[in-house]
Amino acid sequence: MPSMDRSTDEKLETKEMDIRSLSSSGHQAQNTPYIHKVGVPPKQNLFKEFKSTVKETLFSDDPFRPFKDQTGSRKFILGMQTIFPILEWGRSYSLTKFRGDLIAGLTIASLCIPQDIGYAKLANLAPQYGLYSSFVPPLIYAFMGSSRDIAIGPVAVVSLLLGTLLQNEIDPTKNPIEYRRLAFTATFFAGITQATLGFLRLGFLIDFLSHAAIVGFMGGAAITIALQQLKGFLGIVKFTKKSDIVSVMISVWGSVNHGWNWQTILIGASFLSFLLFAKYIGKRNKKFFWVPAIAPLISVILSTFFVYITRADKDGVAIVKHIDKGINPPSLNEIYFSGKYLGKGFRIGVVAGMIALTEATAIGRTFAAMKDYQLDGNKEMVALGAMNIVGSMTSCYVATGSFSRSAVNYMAGCRTAVSNIVMSCVVFLTLEFITPLFKYTPNAILSAIIISAVINLVDFQAAILIWKIDKFDFVACFGAFFGVIFASVEIGLLIAVSISFAKILLQVTRPRTATLGKIPGTSVYRNIQQYPEATKVPGVLIVRVDSAIYFSNSNYIKERILRWLADEEENLKAEYLPRIQFLIVEMSPVTDIDTSGIHALEELHGSLQKRDMQLILANPGPVVIDKLHASKFANLIGENKIFLTVADAVSSCAPKLAEEA
Amino acid sequence: MPSMDRSTDEKLETKEMDIRSLSSSGHQAQNTPYIHKVGVPPKQNLFKEFKSTVKETLFSDDPFRPFKDQTGSRKFILGMQTIFPILEWGRSYSLTKFRGDLIAGLTIASLCIPQDIGYAKLANLAPQYGLYSSFVPPLIYAFMGSSRDIAIGPVAVVSLLLGTLLQNEIDPTKNPIEYRRLAFTATFFAGITQATLGFLRLGFLIDFLSHAAIVGFMGGAAITIALQQLKGFLGIVKFTKKSDIVSVMISVWGSVNHGWNWQTILIGASFLSFLLFAKYIGKRNKKFFWVPAIAPLISVILSTFFVYITRADKDGVAIVKHIDKGINPPSLNEIYFSGKYLGKGFRIGVVAGMIALTEATAIGRTFAAMKDYQLDGNKEMVALGAMNIVGSMTSCYVATGSFSRSAVNYMAGCRTAVSNIVMSCVVFLTLEFITPLFKYTPNAILSAIIISAVINLVDFQAAILIWKIDKFDFVACFGAFFGVIFASVEIGLLIAVSISFAKILLQVTRPRTATLGKIPGTSVYRNIQQYPEATKVPGVLIVRVDSAIYFSNSNYIKERILRWLADEEENLKAEYLPRIQFLIVEMSPVTDIDTSGIHALEELHGSLQKRDMQLILANPGPVVIDKLHASKFANLIGENKIFLTVADAVSSCAPKLAEEA
Repeated sequence: MPSMDRSTDEKLETKEMDIRSLSSSGHQAQNTPYIHKVGVPPKQNLFKEFKSTVKETLFSDDPFRPFKDQTGSRKFILGMQTIFPILEWGRSYSLTKFRGDLIAGLTIASLCIPQDIGYAKLANLAPQYGLYSSFVPPLIYAFMGSSRDIAIGPVAVVSLLLGTLLQNEIDPTKNPIEYRRLAFTATFFAGITQATLGFLRLGFLIDFLSHAAIVGFMGGAAITIALQQLKGFLGIVKFTKKSDIVSVMISVWGSVNHGWNWQTILIGASFLSFLLFAKYIGKRNKKFFWVPAIAPLISVILSTFFVYITRADKDGVAIVKHIDKGINPPSLNEIYFSGKYLGKGFRIGVVAGMIALTEATAIGRTFAAMKDYQLDGNKEMVALGAMNIVGSMTSCYVATGSFSRSAVNYMAGCRTAVSNIVMSCVVFLTLEFITPLFKYTPNAILSAIIISAVINLVDFQAAILIWKIDKFDFVACFGAFFGVIFASVEIGLLIAVSISFAKILLQVTRPRTATLGKIPGTSVYRNIQQYPEATKVPGVLIVRVDSAIYFSNSNYIKERILRWLADEEENLKAEYLPRIQFLIVEMSPVTDIDTSGIHALEELHGSLQKRDMQLILANPGPVVIDKLHASKFANLIGENKIFLTVADAVSSCAPKLAEEA
Repeated sequence: MPSMDRSTDEKLETKEMDIRSLSSSGHQAQNTPYIHKVGVPPKQNLFKEFKSTVKETLFSDDPFRPFKDQTGSRKFILGMQTIFPILEWGRSYSLTKFRGDLIAGLTIASLCIPQDIGYAKLANLAPQYGLYSSFVPPLIYAFMGSSRDIAIGPVAVVSLLLGTLLQNEIDPTKNPIEYRRLAFTATFFAGITQATLGFLRLGFLIDFLSHAAIVGFMGGAAITIALQQLKGFLGIVKFTKKSDIVSVMISVWGSVNHGWNWQTILIGASFLSFLLFAKYIGKRNKKFFWVPAIAPLISVILSTFFVYITRADKDGVAIVKHIDKGINPPSLNEIYFSGKYLGKGFRIGVVAGMIALTEATAIGRTFAAMKDYQLDGNKEMVALGAMNIVGSMTSCYVATGSFSRSAVNYMAGCRTAVSNIVMSCVVFLTLEFITPLFKYTPNAILSAIIISAVINLVDFQAAILIWKIDKFDFVACFGAFFGVIFASVEIGLLIAVSISFAKILLQVTRPRTATLGKIPGTSVYRNIQQYPEATKVPGVLIVRVDSAIYFSNSNYIKERILRWLADEEENLKAEYLPRIQFLIVEMSPVTDIDTSGIHALEELHGSLQKRDMQLILANPGPVVIDKLHASKFANLIGENKIFLTVADAVSSCAPKLAEEA
């Protein structure tokens, strides 16, 4: 048993002593082999333990903290403020803030109107549905959301994903009404999915899609979207329904002789150059952020005017032709609540909802970190879900936070979600009064706008950084990217999710282990590969296990430790050094152990006993020491074989080693 | 930059110094704020890194080690020995060993013959198929397997699982031939699955079923099997096809008035008592292990003779009636290699193959640990797979290692897999000559034998131990158990797998974090909850992150650290203590970090900067320090903010804190 009654100085002395010096002056060491006992935390009762686990898992952000010690009416007000954050920040809203929000709102409105019309086409819907989705959802979000910078509306990737998935079920040209109904059904369930995840506080599930996989997926989706735009950009009439690069390229080159329309190409190319130039200006000087933001609207106005004047549509330049005037018609009765499309709509909604959530969460977190405010992920999900549920009843399809518009919103100086309200009002006015003017807008312009918008999603620099930091991450990124481009968005997504999971599984099945050595002149034991100057202790092998020991890795860990031992013994034999008598397992990183883990330790202990070696544990954590006692494993190896530090454990071996020497 | 040129004594002095003494004698400390540099491991090239990852993941047992530095012909011999281990151990086989194997083989043969007949009924197959499966597969295994103690043949749980899954597709009473063909197809694909997993070295996949889940699943399956035996045991003719406890109980009680056969019950009950008594004797004294082993055969002989004499079958006692004589007919042409049953057979085969593998691996590992020999899991899988592939072509259904027979084999003193060959020979003789004698064997006896065999699979003690060690494991165990009993084997299995995965996911999403304090009189910093005597350092918060920082947890870790900070600041405010200026993150347990993890650290750094606090890292591992450099994060926070130990990091804060004091 550790002796606690010695003076501090003496303890330090012993502790700091090098094992080599101990073997020569063994007697002194024999008296003070170890110093500190491993702490056993106070036993928690079952309910408390369960409560703390649930809290860490589902309520890790401690959402009830403000409700503590409040009166009933105050709790109600706080509750309402939790659901509608506008009640909280609205009270301190000022004219200064409104000025910022007004400018930002007008800027993103001018950007969103042409984008919306284009994105609706990606989802195989009539152009007005894009505008509808920029009217109702942003309003709802402004009341319920807590991000100050996100700009809500339809986005390219979700539109493409939704279009692809819906098209697999219903042909949008043959059965446009059923198609639209299925779109609303999917939107409804996307909202339900989002709100449910938030409400059940399962928001962490979207963390299972790794950053690297998202970068790859987004990049792939952007290129796929850009390729799809070749239809409008080149004025091709017959175009493939598939989205993989091979089919699209065959479509494009197959129609090169009698399908391309030079007038369309001329319009598209000149305005695309204009848009890219505007982007370049905005990038070079942050002051001119508004140039790329209003360039699309200017392009639309100029090109529409041009086509109207020249009547280029008679020469084969495809135009928008018709956008319904008026605001969102109700669509609750169009949602499939029964029949075979219910299940399909649900499935598509779940997928689209999750992807929309991933995008919105990434945006929300990014800007919250930049302005250093806290964002409650689960609350955000409820807000996004509510907005899509209401949206599905008012002829909107899945809306979420847009990368490009949120960035413009931020740079234009938005202060609160009021900028979304401003945008929403502009869209309202557009729907009520301006839509007929879009009749002569050439499709090529919309294609050019979409191409210039999505091109930023191909993030080469992020990919390079991923390559530099983590090769496995790069594989995930690469896989998702090529999956989207060469197969389809679904396959790409599947690859992204699978590789993300594979990485998690790999992490838990094959944890790292390391042999430790003593860093000269200290009592610190570190990985020998990282610190080549660290020296091994003769007769002792020190192995650190770098993970919780669970069923998924317990067997591997046991075998890996035995392999370290076999390797070490081989080396020793070659160099005629004394044999290993003690195996010290440094348990600091072992945060938890389960029944399989205890079994593995028992087996390890058994194997070592047969070889006349002793198993010693160093620094098991609170949970682990608890379980070592509960399972009687601590008794099996002996309580005095468990030490606070590796240094203590090594000291305890010294007398025995000295005897042999 | 750390200074390395100081004498050892001085270093130790500084290191051991308490932070409180440092704040009073700040000047001295200012000169030697840190001591050791964090080691950056030598840069590995990409190929090497990839190779070592693949090696640890797939070849962690280093299977090619014996092949190193050998001549070509020697390599060929070693290769053959790897595939057929009998070539290796066969050379040192001796008469002494054979005596052990002969006795063990005869004992397990006497146990397996009645069990096989009963298990075939569980799989809804004619009794001879059970015997077939105890003839060919053990022979193949003896040549290819490396476990010395496992006894091969049909087992209860796999028979039940296979029976349930096959029955869902084809009715075994209406279409017995199609049913049998599907059974062979499933067996074939079970073998393919096992061999493929072994060949691709993906054996670790079966580790994803946790020990606790298996205990629950096995217990539930045992009870389900026992309940199914009530049909034979009570002599009920009309019996439910479902396996859940509710349906079975309705079936049993529904026929209590005009379905139970008292003669059957009498025979069954008396022999069940005999079998259980034999078991009890075997348990009380290990010397009498053979009593429970031969009791089933004795019961069969006695009861058959009794029925034959009394012609009790005319009073409604159900008997076996007919078993085909002769050894396994070929069945290659019965396997579905096309058509709709190919896919179904494949799916069932994969599931049954995985479960069979889990059982065999658990048995193999247990006995290998008891006799302390190494077992190559992947090689075992190839052997088991090969034996089932050959089995499917010779009228066998899925065979694997049996818990009960392997234990008997071990206790009877088996030395090698030759005991399986002996058993196989006895089964061969039985098939050739004795099967007609089983005609009058009452079904009630087979039911009694199965009940007494599976009852041991309900492992209460293991469940209690699981409860004591890990509550979450217990939930898995409990869930699988009740899933099997109240729903079906498939549902139980699904629950077991889901909970196992949920645990893995929880582990990676919600890693533990802890605040550290200094253990008085040492330079060791430990979890304050575990060591209440540990003291916090004023002005410094030390947080340890107990996991690799990956996309799945990076966001949680960042927010959790900020919450520790918020909690701590609240405490300090309440006690009017100085504010926190330094956040030290102890990275020892952080074995890896990916791009998302780096992002999270960057965001943490940003948040701290806004609060005028400094982020300091202690002891990042080799992989982490590498990535911190690759991502330029080390430059961002400053190289001199990364320390070897927490003690060093605390010392570095001292001058600044002293200034303020």
